[in-house]
Formats: sequence, C-alpha cells, structure tokens
Amino acid sequence: MLASIAHRTPPRSYGPWEQVASTLAEGLVVRGHDVTLFATADSLTGARLHAVAPAGYEEDPTIDVKVCESLHIAAVFERAAQFDVISNQFDFLPLTYSRLTSTPVVTTIHGFSSERIVRVYRAYDDIAHYVSISDANRHPALTYAATIHHGLDLTRFTPGPGGDHLLFLGRIHPDKGTHLAIDVARRAGMPLVIAGVVHDETYFRSLVEPHVDGSLVRYVGSVGPAERDRLLGGAAALLHLIDFEEPFGLAVVEALAAGTPVIATPRGSLSELVRDGTTGFLVADADEAVAAVGRLPTIDRRACRHEAETRFSADRMVDGYERLFHGVVASGRGRRPPAA
Amino acid sequence: MLASIAHRTPPRSYGPWEQVASTLAEGLVVRGHDVTLFATADSLTGARLHAVAPAGYEEDPTIDVKVCESLHIAAVFERAAQFDVISNQFDFLPLTYSRLTSTPVVTTIHGFSSERIVRVYRAYDDIAHYVSISDANRHPALTYAATIHHGLDLTRFTPGPGGDHLLFLGRIHPDKGTHLAIDVARRAGMPLVIAGVVHDETYFRSLVEPHVDGSLVRYVGSVGPAERDRLLGGAAALLHLIDFEEPFGLAVVEALAAGTPVIATPRGSLSELVRDGTTGFLVADADEAVAAVGRLPTIDRRACRHEAETRFSADRMVDGYERLFHGVVASGRGRRPPAA
Repeated sequence: MLASIAHRTPPRSYGPWEQVASTLAEGLVVRGHDVTLFATADSLTGARLHAVAPAGYEEDPTIDVKVCESLHIAAVFERAAQFDVISNQFDFLPLTYSRLTSTPVVTTIHGFSSERIVRVYRAYDDIAHYVSISDANRHPALTYAATIHHGLDLTRFTPGPGGDHLLFLGRIHPDKGTHLAIDVARRAGMPLVIAGVVHDETYFRSLVEPHVDGSLVRYVGSVGPAERDRLLGGAAALLHLIDFEEPFGLAVVEALAAGTPVIATPRGSLSELVRDGTTGFLVADADEAVAAVGRLPTIDRRACRHEAETRFSADRMVDGYERLFHGVVASGRGRRPPAA
Repeated sequence: MLASIAHRTPPRSYGPWEQVASTLAEGLVVRGHDVTLFATADSLTGARLHAVAPAGYEEDPTIDVKVCESLHIAAVFERAAQFDVISNQFDFLPLTYSRLTSTPVVTTIHGFSSERIVRVYRAYDDIAHYVSISDANRHPALTYAATIHHGLDLTRFTPGPGGDHLLFLGRIHPDKGTHLAIDVARRAGMPLVIAGVVHDETYFRSLVEPHVDGSLVRYVGSVGPAERDRLLGGAAALLHLIDFEEPFGLAVVEALAAGTPVIATPRGSLSELVRDGTTGFLVADADEAVAAVGRLPTIDRRACRHEAETRFSADRMVDGYERLFHGVVASGRGRRPPAA
C-alpha cells in the first residue's frame, strides 16, 4: 500500500488520500492479509510500516518533496517481488515505475489535479488497473477496473443528536463554496460553524473571515477526528455547496455517518452520495439551499446513518478492493516480464 | 543518453546540462557508437532521438514538468534492455529507477542544488557510477568512478583577436558576481559587455540594470552560439568573479577556446580550470581583479586556446566517458538482477 506522504497516515486533520490508504490498509490487516504500508515514519498502522519520509511534507517544511517522493516510490518498486499486488494511492508518479516490475499495480485515481496529468494515465492504461472513486470522476480516455466509493471506519463516527447550527467542513476554497454556506446560513437564520484548513488565503481573507463573528459564524480551524465527530453529530446539516466537479466528498459521507443530512449542489460525485429527500437535499442554488434548510425536519437522521452503514462503510470499501486485488492477481492481466 | 528537458539539446542559449549531453552524444556517434538521445522533441542530434517532451519546459510554460520529467525518465528505463549503458545527465531522479534494471547507469553529477538531494545519491552509491565534473565538486559522502571535465566542440569556438572590452558571460545572479564585474570594469577603465539570462530578477534590477548605460556597461541578454563566439573572441578577458563553489565554469573554458584569458576567483572548480599567469589570473578580490586587468598584456592568447585544445576539448571528454563506459560494461559492476 503506497500512501501519499503529504501527511501522516492516517492524517491528523486534513488528508483524504492518506485517510483512504489508512482505512483500506487497516481493513485488509484485520482480514488477515499481509500488508506493508509505505507512508511517513510517524504513521500509525497495524500493517508493517516502511518509511522514507520522517513526516508529511505539508507538515515539515525541511523536507525536500521531490527527494522524498521519489525515494518513497522507489522503495515500493524495489521490493515489488515481495508483493502479490501494489495498491497505489499516490497519484500518477508511481505509474512511471510500474512497467519495470511484473507485480500488478492497482491505482486509485483520487482526482485529476490538471488535464495535463491524464497523459500519464493514458500512457499506462494498457497495464494499469484504475479505480475511480466515483462514476462521475471517470475520465473518458481511460479504462477502469472498478469504481469503489470511499468507506469510513464507522466506529469512529457516532450517530449524533443534531442541533441548531449548520456546518461547513472542508478546505476553505472557492471550489468548496464556503462563502455560499455563510450566505445560506444567514438567510436561513441559523448559526454556521466553519471547520477546515485554509487552501486559498486570499479567498479566506476577503470572503470568509470578514463574516466570522464568533457567534452566528464561527471558524474553528482544522479539526482532528474527535472534534470532527462532535461537530458533525451536533449539526442540523452539512452545507456542501461546491462549485466544481468533486471526485468524492469525504465530508459528505462522514456527515451521514454521524446521522447528519447533507445539503449539496449536484456536481461531480454528489448525486452518487446524497439521496435527495432521504439523506439530504440536492440544490441548484443558494435559494434552494435556504429552502432546503427549512425542510430539514423531514429528514430522518437514522436514514442518514443507515446509508453510511450500507453504502459507505470501510467494510464495503475493503470488500471492493479485496475482490479487485484477488481478480487482478488471479488473472495476471497487466503482468509483463521484467524490463531488463 | 538521458538529457535534461529544461531546454533543447543542444540549448539555443543557456543550458549547460543539455550542452554537455549534446557534445557527448555527438562525439560518441562520430566514433561509431550506437547512441539514443532522450531529449526534447525539438533537439538536434546525429543520434537516434527519443522524445517525450515537445520542447524544453523552461521555454514552453504549457508543459507540466513533473509529467514530462517522469515519462521522459521512464522511457529510458523501460527500454534499458536495449542499451549496454545509460548515461544519466539529468540529476538525481533517474537514480530512483536505476535499481529496477540490470543495465548499468553512469550518472554525471552536474552539481548539488541542495544538500538535501545528497540523500538520493547516497541511497544509490552502491550501484551507481558517479562522475564528478571537477575534483572540487566531489561530495565526501559519495564514491566516484571518475572526474571528467566538460569538453567543447572546438570547431564552434574561433580563436579571436581580443579587444578593448571585458566580458561577463553567465547567469545574472549574485553567485556569478555580475555586480563585481561591473565594479572591476569601471575601476579598470574598460567597457564591459554583460551577456546571459537573468536568474535573479531582484538582483538584476537593483545591482546590475542601474549601471547599464549602453556604452561603458552594455547588457545584451541571452546569446546563442554564434553571438557568444563573437563576444568571447572580441573580449580582452572574461570576468568570472564568482561567489560560490562553482562545480564547473563552462563559460570559462569557452573563453579559453576563443583565446580569451579569464580573471576569476579561485572558488570551486576554478583553480582546476584557470592557470594563474598563463591562461588568466586567479584573484582574491576586486582590487586584485583590477590589477589583473592591467596585467592582461602578459597573457598569450594562443596559450589560452592551446589549453582548451589540450584539456577542454570534446575529444578529451568523450575519451574519458568512452573509457568509463567500456570499463563499466566490461566489469558488470553495479549490475543487479531485475527487481521482480
């Protein structure tokens, strides 16, 4: 299991790629698989840990990203003969090593940061086994082995009582619609709690921070798992008014796991994650979002939790990957003789 | 031959790594070797050209550096079985692929951009064959196969008549002492021509540009091979008053090839390149540099050209690499069975 080394695995707060790698690695270990996790040295795992980077490069500015990324990836491929399959949770760079080994590599595509990186995915489409994290995120030029939605370790999310405030949880960035959440909460007359790491400083300063008053609009910064669980369980709804084709909304299924409905724009994966009228509302704009807040009492919080249990559990995700790994190993598809 | 893809090979103007890769590749081709050059698609070579990047990423901002670098390096290693030896002229990243092939890789270290990249060189020290480009640039933690000074295709450098102006040729950057060259030229009462690409905009604007008057101090920008040859041959001396441990001074040996003496600070490789009193002067500071300008008539320009012919020719460099490549291939040292 090749994790990203931007953050620890699992992440202390933000780090969706590392979170998925952790959930999958731990789930496979529990099922008796022999797993080696390649991640930062401060990672926590029941798998064997192999580390090149002392810590996440987003957390330790002394780390040379290119040096650590390349040594980290090389470490997996230099040991490839020991593994039946390599699970790549770390973007496109590992693919460029993948033709140099006969061990099959299953690559989870966590999204396309730029259309330009598609070139690499296309170059390895013949031997790769690509996993899309939602049907919406499939690129038409690529061949996919499966769509596997992310799953959560549900023991870490407590069904909560709800409350009288709305919640924004995610990166503070125009894509995530933080400013829309503020607008909707105000017009709906409900307090808003904003939690997440600032990914666009200019946006934060101009369109978010001026509205933070400590009572109607509170900003609590980036939060760890315990605080996140508390915030989610105590919210009337998650406002997820995104303005981009989001590959997967981890915060959305985390909200459901806490029994909290989600009000979201149906962009990217969102219509795969939220069932309109049952686990929240899919809304076209801010007006519809304000109206949806008024309809929140019609949502049964138990239905939200139930949705998370049936569709977004770690077990269901591990099932999907386990089945795929077995199939890949059994078929030998994509195997090539060593390069030299 | 794995060239850098920052620029075309050979470069249009700046691009020392690409220049060395070109000189070496063409020299080997002339000697009858079967050479494949991995470089940008607009490169010019008598070798077989394999290109991933359409152009140099420093010249085309639409290029995604990480995408093109990784596909470029992978292209070599995926074909490694076709080659007796891989000549890596492209920094540390290719090393992280090198344990996945049994083809030996000879890596020319063009300098250490940061102490942090030494970690990669150390990690592959057991199988690598490192070439230092000067004795001065050897890192104490690494094992070297040879020191091979850069060489020039001397047919491209015309012994010139000299002239009454001094020349600065290189990147405009504090390391290169552009401001010192201006100071020395003024105090020596000679005009100065500055040629080179601006690598530090703030430095250029504050300490170089204000002195450019179009007559006593002229800035002619980045120059191609023909203009460089003319500038070098028409200069009384090259002022190379560097303020860093320069791994190799390509402009220094280019000046010698044009018959032009060099006034340089004896940092890094410089005392390996300039013979004090014969091909120029090694000076401790600006005062000594001004005095050295007065002593330029004591230097025989033919001795400078002779030095280039005997010590810094392409033939001599190709000899060095050819001997090393033969030795590496014959010994098989560093070969490992394929990884998987």
